[in-house]
Amino acid sequence: MMKLAVSPPILMRSLRKAFSCSAAPRWEGGVSMVQGASRGIGLEFARQLLERNEKGHVIATCRNPDGATSLLELKRKFMERLNIMQLDVTKESTIQATATSIRESYGSLNLLINASGILSVPNILQPETTLSKVEKSSLLLAYEVNAIGPILVIKHMWPLLKVGGGSRIKRKFAVVANLSARVGSIGDNGLGGWYAYRSSKAALNQLTKTISVEFARRKDPIICILLHPGTVDTDLSQPFQRNVPEGKLFTKEFSVQKLLSIIENSKSSDNGKFFAWDGQEIPW
Amino acid sequence: MMKLAVSPPILMRSLRKAFSCSAAPRWEGGVSMVQGASRGIGLEFARQLLERNEKGHVIATCRNPDGATSLLELKRKFMERLNIMQLDVTKESTIQATATSIRESYGSLNLLINASGILSVPNILQPETTLSKVEKSSLLLAYEVNAIGPILVIKHMWPLLKVGGGSRIKRKFAVVANLSARVGSIGDNGLGGWYAYRSSKAALNQLTKTISVEFARRKDPIICILLHPGTVDTDLSQPFQRNVPEGKLFTKEFSVQKLLSIIENSKSSDNGKFFAWDGQEIPW
Ligand SMILES: NC(=O)c1ccc[n+]([C@@H]2O[C@H](COP(=O)([O-])OP(=O)(O)OC[C@H]3O[C@@H](n4cnc5c(N)ncnc54)[C@H](OP(=O)(O)O)[C@@H]3O)[C@@H](O)[C@H]2O)c1
Ligand SMILES: NC(=O)c1ccc[n+]([C@@H]2O[C@H](COP(=O)([O-])OP(=O)(O)OC[C@H]3O[C@@H](n4cnc5c(N)ncnc54)[C@H](OP(=O)(O)O)[C@@H]3O)[C@@H](O)[C@H]2O)c1
Repeated sequence: MMKLAVSPPILMRSLRKAFSCSAAPRWEGGVSMVQGASRGIGLEFARQLLERNEKGHVIATCRNPDGATSLLELKRKFMERLNIMQLDVTKESTIQATATSIRESYGSLNLLINASGILSVPNILQPETTLSKVEKSSLLLAYEVNAIGPILVIKHMWPLLKVGGGSRIKRKFAVVANLSARVGSIGDNGLGGWYAYRSSKAALNQLTKTISVEFARRKDPIICILLHPGTVDTDLSQPFQRNVPEGKLFTKEFSVQKLLSIIENSKSSDNGKFFAWDGQEIPW
Repeated sequence: MMKLAVSPPILMRSLRKAFSCSAAPRWEGGVSMVQGASRGIGLEFARQLLERNEKGHVIATCRNPDGATSLLELKRKFMERLNIMQLDVTKESTIQATATSIRESYGSLNLLINASGILSVPNILQPETTLSKVEKSSLLLAYEVNAIGPILVIKHMWPLLKVGGGSRIKRKFAVVANLSARVGSIGDNGLGGWYAYRSSKAALNQLTKTISVEFARRKDPIICILLHPGTVDTDLSQPFQRNVPEGKLFTKEFSVQKLLSIIENSKSSDNGKFFAWDGQEIPW
């Protein structure tokens, strides 16, 4: 009888990995990950990706899958092509575990959308109307969730995106799209306020740009872009909607349709750019 | 005998406060604060401010006054006009205590220079050469020191700067100058790397811009600017100096001379702008 050089669990894992790697091409239509998909814009991205591409596979992550009722509903409709995984961007171990699961189950990624984000959290984070209300704890929390979070997700998904690139899809490269916000633009900042949110998004922009430079230098088949969805009718914008001019509050459906067309039509020269929903570039 | 409506310590504090307020005009030559003055560019700012304006008063803050040998040496030369105070930007209580001391001793500020900053800290923070080395703890630390720190200092000095404005000096307004860095520019980021430092400075730029908008809206007699000192021969740049082209490594003396002339010649329309040592604006 042949002697096993590795213990059975390690062998199992290797076999599974070998299988999933050789099986990668079977993910016809490509594999997309939407991070922050429990509700709002992220949920709508998952829905439209599943509806628009009848062969595409979607991994939708959220902090609390059991409580993500709308996402679970979507799962019932797209049982085979939607995979829900648990991920909290403030807990790197959950990001790492998700990367391991995706590697084992799919072996690659063609699209990563980071849609998670916070602007206000009841009793914890309020958008500051003045400098005197700026608190260290708020600045740190917004930075952790809005800037560090998406970057750690990219860090751990990077090997999968490299394998995926443009294989089995129309593009020549994988795309990473980070949801930023126009108020993160320094050049466009004419109103002030919202210190924690603004600076976390400016930092996200800088980090994403830095990654785009590294990917280009390494000639990885991946581009990174930043997206501003417009002011969209979600829980995030809800407390501020009365200041939105008539006709300027978009539905999730409309915004995500626009953003997906930017992603689908992206060129390699878009790497490192910051686009609004209408395709216009936003100044840094 | 008159009955005291307030307890003696409170009375003492009020008397001291009243005295220092009425005494404010005696700070002929103005009162400047240099935060992060133990060494490098901050120390040189303190020195040149004292040397160039023979009536000016300088408050130099640092984390550990007892160990700040060069600053203590400067104190021996400018005994009357230099006041050293303890301040660690990561400990808000020390910022608040400094504001209280300055209010009691001077009553106002005409200039605040935030010169503190970190790029690398042995065994704790290394500028990342690649995304795979990006760590949450490094991103948080750089953000806390480089972005949050200066903003909390401005928050607490704001009332003093409002009182100071342009009184007793040539300008019409007080100036807040935050030391940023060209590598914090998103638009100018062609090299990548240094994730934690770059994003902390981009965030500092956004926060400073946001403050400048608020000061302008309130018509406070204060402007905020961001400064890039060039590559300057200090402890911070030391590990990276071999990559600096011939003639491009500035002395502290040269850089601070240039930066002080930007500060001294600043116009109210400079509020919210980001200048290099040579007066050129840097893109966001
Ligand atoms: N709506 C707008 O007008 C607007 C405008 C500009 C930019 N944006 C940006 O667009 C993105 C989506 O916003 P939205 O309007 O869809 O917001 P939303 O409806 O409030 O949804 C936010 C999403 O982020 C998730 N999230 C929060 N903290 C998380 C964490 N620690 N780990 C993982 N996920 C987390 C939430 O999950 P839970 O359900 O677990 O809380 C939720 O799925 C955000 O980045 C936002 O900044 C939105
Ligand atoms: N040198 C350059 O080439 C260069 C280029 C671009 C931008 N800058 C920026 O210019 C500024 C000054 O840099 P430098 O070259 O003078 O650096 P440096 O010689 O390393 O001095 C850094 C200063 O920051 C202080 N500091 C660090 N952590 C602090 C904290 N938590 N609280 C208060 N003070 C703290 C240090 O105090 P301790 O002595 O207590 O450590 C020291 O006084 C920085 O903001 C830097 O980012 C420098």
